[in-house]
Amino acid sequence: MASGLPPSQEEYLPRIHFHLQLAELKDKLLAMAALSQQAVESAVDAWLQRDTGLCQYVRDNETAINSAQREVDEMAYELLAKEQPMAIDLRFILAVIKINADLERIGDIAVSIAVRTLDLVDQESSDLPVDLASMGDFATRMIRTAIQSLLDGDVPVAESVLDMDDEIDRMNRVAITDLTRRIQEHPECADLALPAILISRNLERIADHATNIATDVIFWVRGADVRHQLSLAVD
Amino acid sequence: MASGLPPSQEEYLPRIHFHLQLAELKDKLLAMAALSQQAVESAVDAWLQRDTGLCQYVRDNETAINSAQREVDEMAYELLAKEQPMAIDLRFILAVIKINADLERIGDIAVSIAVRTLDLVDQESSDLPVDLASMGDFATRMIRTAIQSLLDGDVPVAESVLDMDDEIDRMNRVAITDLTRRIQEHPECADLALPAILISRNLERIADHATNIATDVIFWVRGADVRHQLSLAVD
Repeated sequence: MASGLPPSQEEYLPRIHFHLQLAELKDKLLAMAALSQQAVESAVDAWLQRDTGLCQYVRDNETAINSAQREVDEMAYELLAKEQPMAIDLRFILAVIKINADLERIGDIAVSIAVRTLDLVDQESSDLPVDLASMGDFATRMIRTAIQSLLDGDVPVAESVLDMDDEIDRMNRVAITDLTRRIQEHPECADLALPAILISRNLERIADHATNIATDVIFWVRGADVRHQLSLAVD
Repeated sequence: MASGLPPSQEEYLPRIHFHLQLAELKDKLLAMAALSQQAVESAVDAWLQRDTGLCQYVRDNETAINSAQREVDEMAYELLAKEQPMAIDLRFILAVIKINADLERIGDIAVSIAVRTLDLVDQESSDLPVDLASMGDFATRMIRTAIQSLLDGDVPVAESVLDMDDEIDRMNRVAITDLTRRIQEHPECADLALPAILISRNLERIADHATNIATDVIFWVRGADVRHQLSLAVD
């Protein structure tokens, strides 16, 4: 055994090593996803509770997200350069690079929500006709489901994220209509209702990024570029 | 000559062929960039002139953008799989894939502006305290400059895009403040002022995508991941 491996093992060992590295890449991406998801949850809670500490947490968290993103990117680039993967492995690494960018944007949007909240922290909260808590829950559920579909390479689960996107689009449209009416009837509410509109839009954009992640999972598993067919079906 | 090439040429010909393909990929990306830029210009004009024809044009244009995006992605993936490029060529192809995604999002945002305009086409235009024409010009100038930096592999030009981003952020902040005040003083203006706020935000997001493109150019040319250092300097 120690003097040399039979040819079949010589052939397979580098492949096993490569697949261990792919698994490590997936783990790093999962850590990145956890940070982004947590940023969204904290930002929405910060808004709902006017909590400056949570706002600061979201901003500090951004540094962690940025270095997690860099780690994932660097490992993905290194695997592309050194291992020169083919077909499904190549598509997986490309999907990871794209998903990583989406997760980073999700973190950025969470910071926008936190900054917007900090601006308003001295204002008394008023009862606005919008349920940002539910929208936030829904958006983070979409991220979680998209990441689950990545973990399992599960196309139907990824497709369910695309369906969910219709629902959050609807929630966002209702929020904009209701909040606009409130501003027209009670202009003194504009200082709070307007940021609420922008946060509703932020959550809808976060959901769009979750949809992108799901689409990249489908591309990875199926290979064909189904992106635009799917987006046509969803629009 | 016909019976066989000297070794040096045998070595160089595939490389020349590969670089011709990279040049073709760049051309395809430029065509994609032209479509996205035109979509933004048309969408802003459509809003300013309440032009339903232009709105429809932007929506039709989306199909062209989507197929251009697919073409770029497919060629990039094929080059990665077949040529297994190293170092700067690998970084170039990865930058193209990312820039391509940013250009497609720019097209999507242009469609959002067109859809928003269609909803309001029957409303008389009123004199709002926002200069969306200048913001639109500025955003398209940022896209053009970012693409120019890609063409020339020019890092200082790419860096100038990051500086421009500060200016459009400022324009967006001023627009939101002024339009909010208008809504508070004249609630009957909300139906028009609120979409104007959202379009101002859309243009600021388009500028963010131009900034992403510039950052990817810097990554391609310099190799190091300067993304977060740069974004820190810009924030």
